[in-house]
Amino acid sequence: MAKPTVFHIPVCPFCQRLEILLELKGRRDEVDFHVVDITQPRPQWLLDKTRGTTALPVLETSDGRILKESLVILQYLEDVHVEPPVAQRDPYRRAVEGMLVRMEGDFTTQGYRFLMNQDPDRRAALEQAMLEQYGRLGDFLAEHAPAGPFLFEAFGWAEVVFTPMFMRFWFLEYYEGFALPDAPRFGRVREWVDACLAHPSTQQVGKEQIVKLYYDYAKGAGNGALLPGRSRSSFAFEPDWRSRPWPPSDKYEHSATDQELGL
Amino acid sequence: MAKPTVFHIPVCPFCQRLEILLELKGRRDEVDFHVVDITQPRPQWLLDKTRGTTALPVLETSDGRILKESLVILQYLEDVHVEPPVAQRDPYRRAVEGMLVRMEGDFTTQGYRFLMNQDPDRRAALEQAMLEQYGRLGDFLAEHAPAGPFLFEAFGWAEVVFTPMFMRFWFLEYYEGFALPDAPRFGRVREWVDACLAHPSTQQVGKEQIVKLYYDYAKGAGNGALLPGRSRSSFAFEPDWRSRPWPPSDKYEHSATDQELGL
Repeated sequence: MAKPTVFHIPVCPFCQRLEILLELKGRRDEVDFHVVDITQPRPQWLLDKTRGTTALPVLETSDGRILKESLVILQYLEDVHVEPPVAQRDPYRRAVEGMLVRMEGDFTTQGYRFLMNQDPDRRAALEQAMLEQYGRLGDFLAEHAPAGPFLFEAFGWAEVVFTPMFMRFWFLEYYEGFALPDAPRFGRVREWVDACLAHPSTQQVGKEQIVKLYYDYAKGAGNGALLPGRSRSSFAFEPDWRSRPWPPSDKYEHSATDQELGL
Repeated sequence: MAKPTVFHIPVCPFCQRLEILLELKGRRDEVDFHVVDITQPRPQWLLDKTRGTTALPVLETSDGRILKESLVILQYLEDVHVEPPVAQRDPYRRAVEGMLVRMEGDFTTQGYRFLMNQDPDRRAALEQAMLEQYGRLGDFLAEHAPAGPFLFEAFGWAEVVFTPMFMRFWFLEYYEGFALPDAPRFGRVREWVDACLAHPSTQQVGKEQIVKLYYDYAKGAGNGALLPGRSRSSFAFEPDWRSRPWPPSDKYEHSATDQELGL
């Protein structure tokens, strides 16, 4: 029987969730990963499979059925590959995990909004709102998992969901100078973030790759869209990101050319 | 052992989900429902339990632990009361159910945005966007469950999640004259909505109650907030909604007084 196939964008955080889960289960080789170039129009054969939607990741099962939405696919993989369990099984623990995972949507939205902002006058308010998001995560962990570093004994479901975002938010560090203050409210969440970033299951991408590929997002252009005066997206596969220089970090003052970005 | 307690607002759609699920499981009597008056500030004892958050429903377990978020509580009840199952157990079916449930957020947001709009010039675009939401649900059902009326053999998890919204959207029928067109794209979703509304497990509220209580939402004031010139919210417990007249439906032309609303 054919392996299931995941259609994904290499640096996409939602796609990375699936890789982390499979890594934790020791099943990375049982799923084929097919890379999609976000800077090109989606190929027709892929649109046929998805019935026209363009969001990724998408999983095609061995018998050709299509699943969408990273959390749905994640649960499917958890259900198909039961051992070792990554999600909690006890009803109360599962609910605690569920409450934390429900906080991810606002967290992610806020981070991308901050990164994509082009108005220096809005910067301070966006930074404050981002801190509040981290603060809420910290409050939740302090209530439900004061001992740390993870929500439960080991890196689990909530960590699979959040870690790709913690990694993407390296772009806030680079382009916005964002950092968690050295204040008591942020101690517990900092411990969590650090433990997630260091976990061996999460090393599919690194800071340099994320900072370079997300340059266009920092300038307000998402999903592989082209900025004025540019002929290539920072998400382009070629030239490889390793061969490009680090982009200028002063996003509010300067718009880099293709050449400056090594594209 | 004490029963678990749900703190809820009687007409709140997120709270109704829990009632429907318990009804389907024949467990309605095993949970105490404690009514919270949305027109009054939250009592301190409740804020102490929730650590300051005001969103409902909240479930307090028999041993005093607090769970928030309707979908989290729903899953907890499903896990604690395993029989009869309401959610799908097969991984693929569960994923299909999950994909449909993921569509509920945008659907709900769009419905409330339409209801709360006060600008007649935006009405047509909001109606169109609402139709598009129903259209997407219909497309999904046509793909995954063409035979109908439900997503699977019986009224299940997706129906528990959506039915309270279908009922709330009676307010769109009344205040916006909204109706699904008699067009092929809407046939399958209409069949679903009708079957959900008619199901015996979903009869906790009715159209008259919803239309009367949500008058202030139709005028742009949510969550029990007071409109200018009014001294009582349409969500007030007294006078009972049964004794009040039907509100005027011309929301763009007229602002009803307490007296006209029978408050």
